[in-house]
Amino acid sequence: MQALLLDRELSYRTDQPIPKPEAGEALIEMRLAGICATDLELAHGYAGFTGILGHEFVGQVVEVADANDRHWLGSRVVGSINIGCRQCPTCLTTGPAHCPTRRVLGIRAKDGAFADFFTLPVANLLRLPDHVADETAVFAEPLAAALRVVEQLQDLPRGEIGVLGPGRLGLLIGRVLALAGHRVTMLGRSETSLTQPRRWGLQAGLAADFPESGFSCIVDASGTASGFTAALRLLRAQGCLVLKSTFVADHPIDLSPLVVKEIRLLGSRCGRFEPALDRLSAGDIAVETLIDGVFPLSAGPAAFATAARPGVRKILLKR
Amino acid sequence: MQALLLDRELSYRTDQPIPKPEAGEALIEMRLAGICATDLELAHGYAGFTGILGHEFVGQVVEVADANDRHWLGSRVVGSINIGCRQCPTCLTTGPAHCPTRRVLGIRAKDGAFADFFTLPVANLLRLPDHVADETAVFAEPLAAALRVVEQLQDLPRGEIGVLGPGRLGLLIGRVLALAGHRVTMLGRSETSLTQPRRWGLQAGLAADFPESGFSCIVDASGTASGFTAALRLLRAQGCLVLKSTFVADHPIDLSPLVVKEIRLLGSRCGRFEPALDRLSAGDIAVETLIDGVFPLSAGPAAFATAARPGVRKILLKR
Ligand SMILES: [Zn+2]
Ligand SMILES: [Zn+2]
Ligand SMILES: [Zn+2]
Ligand SMILES: [Zn+2]
Repeated sequence: MQALLLDRELSYRTDQPIPKPEAGEALIEMRLAGICATDLELAHGYAGFTGILGHEFVGQVVEVADANDRHWLGSRVVGSINIGCRQCPTCLTTGPAHCPTRRVLGIRAKDGAFADFFTLPVANLLRLPDHVADETAVFAEPLAAALRVVEQLQDLPRGEIGVLGPGRLGLLIGRVLALAGHRVTMLGRSETSLTQPRRWGLQAGLAADFPESGFSCIVDASGTASGFTAALRLLRAQGCLVLKSTFVADHPIDLSPLVVKEIRLLGSRCGRFEPALDRLSAGDIAVETLIDGVFPLSAGPAAFATAARPGVRKILLKR
Repeated sequence: MQALLLDRELSYRTDQPIPKPEAGEALIEMRLAGICATDLELAHGYAGFTGILGHEFVGQVVEVADANDRHWLGSRVVGSINIGCRQCPTCLTTGPAHCPTRRVLGIRAKDGAFADFFTLPVANLLRLPDHVADETAVFAEPLAAALRVVEQLQDLPRGEIGVLGPGRLGLLIGRVLALAGHRVTMLGRSETSLTQPRRWGLQAGLAADFPESGFSCIVDASGTASGFTAALRLLRAQGCLVLKSTFVADHPIDLSPLVVKEIRLLGSRCGRFEPALDRLSAGDIAVETLIDGVFPLSAGPAAFATAARPGVRKILLKR
């Protein structure tokens, strides 16, 4: 089958075997898949993953390992990406996303969705309503991650929130925070980066134009050390910083404002799919306007190069 | 008068003028003062402070600017160190510690207590009960900072807390957390660093001996980038990290565990003096056993050199 395989570097292959679903799993035919920042980092060797990439997908169930799961056959689905051991204390309390021995679709010890076929436990799947198009549903995973921020800030008084990094994920975060009743300002580094936020009806400005200590809450979706440093500058004393993107500070970084300003920092990762699917089904987020290109799997490396260009939002892959 | 003046480097001076108390201020004769990690950092040029160092003190009020404050004359006092503008929104809500234009005794735009005399607003002063010795009361400021951690963790279920860095401040933090009902483990880098914690009845071990993700809460009082990295390793998913010491990560540092583990980080700085004085007055913390030496002001540079040696805990200065 076709697949985008990461093995030191990313390559398009046609020689990969179709995987066999293990107990509890479904074999899924890929319909549409999205490239995100994590994929770009993985392709650069971050986390040392080797295998088929891809974790944002819409697919169709074509085979199941267990007879009990036959009702899934033919279903159009999206799916959560963490596969826990289902036995450890973490799995039984916090859930699979933090299981120490977890596998993660296309990210950790589990081949992903940038292929003709891939496997996932049926426990991870969600059936799609017919009226939700593939081009909408493919945003379920990043929208779930965005909604995780709303969940973490649910006890925060409604007020001004700055979202640093008006890219793919930042836009989704800004939109769902606004829908939850917060006053959102999208903060970018260039005027062009502010166009799309404004098209989505969000306040937007250059981060450098805002005074020190102007925000009581900042969501950092910039994925850069300079964004993190800007967030510390913009936050007022005892403010709240949601850290949404991983990064390695390869330059010296001054963490002392965390202490001096007594910042409360919340690391934020994956979210639940059900509320994301509800939002997409209701149609109140124009996710399709984020799509900047759809490439066939065979043009995978070119699709990755396009997705990495500044200002490009969502690049999709189809079969 | 005598003073330890920081002006590029630290020097003992006898030519400094006795300061005049401004409106609302008292002139205080120093009785005993403590050197802390912040002083050592300031002496190395951190924060660019120029002036007389010293913010942990016991003193006696010898003059007041306002007739209304004459009841302070002769009082033996300790005092909080932040002087806010008393007008900005921060001063009126959060308090002076986060005022953007604050002065801080011996730290920021205000000469400190390593001198024969210094000034401070009477609003910052607390009168000492007679039975609390100078050698006990001089720990009011660091104990207040330690109690701030207890306050920030008051909603945390009682459980296992690791305190990284069994130095001066770490020990006080460990002790007050234990008094508040938490199970505390002091985490050090060498066997010798564990002696004092055990003498204080605290569990202690080498940080490197503990498994990954073993703690749901860590207080990092190490003041080093390697301590911070160790804290991220030791914390379990969705755990809580109290960051107590400022540091500049001058080597590359990987902050991605904050996101991947969804850590909740709380920056922690100064605390209220009243509860600290209550604890010292009750006598249930053997702070005097932390004293490793008392130097005259005239031997100030030697006192600083001693305080900077590994394993040395509290060095005091007297007149
Ligand atoms: Zn992703
Ligand atoms: Zn597990
Ligand atoms: Zn101090
Ligand atoms: Zn103020």
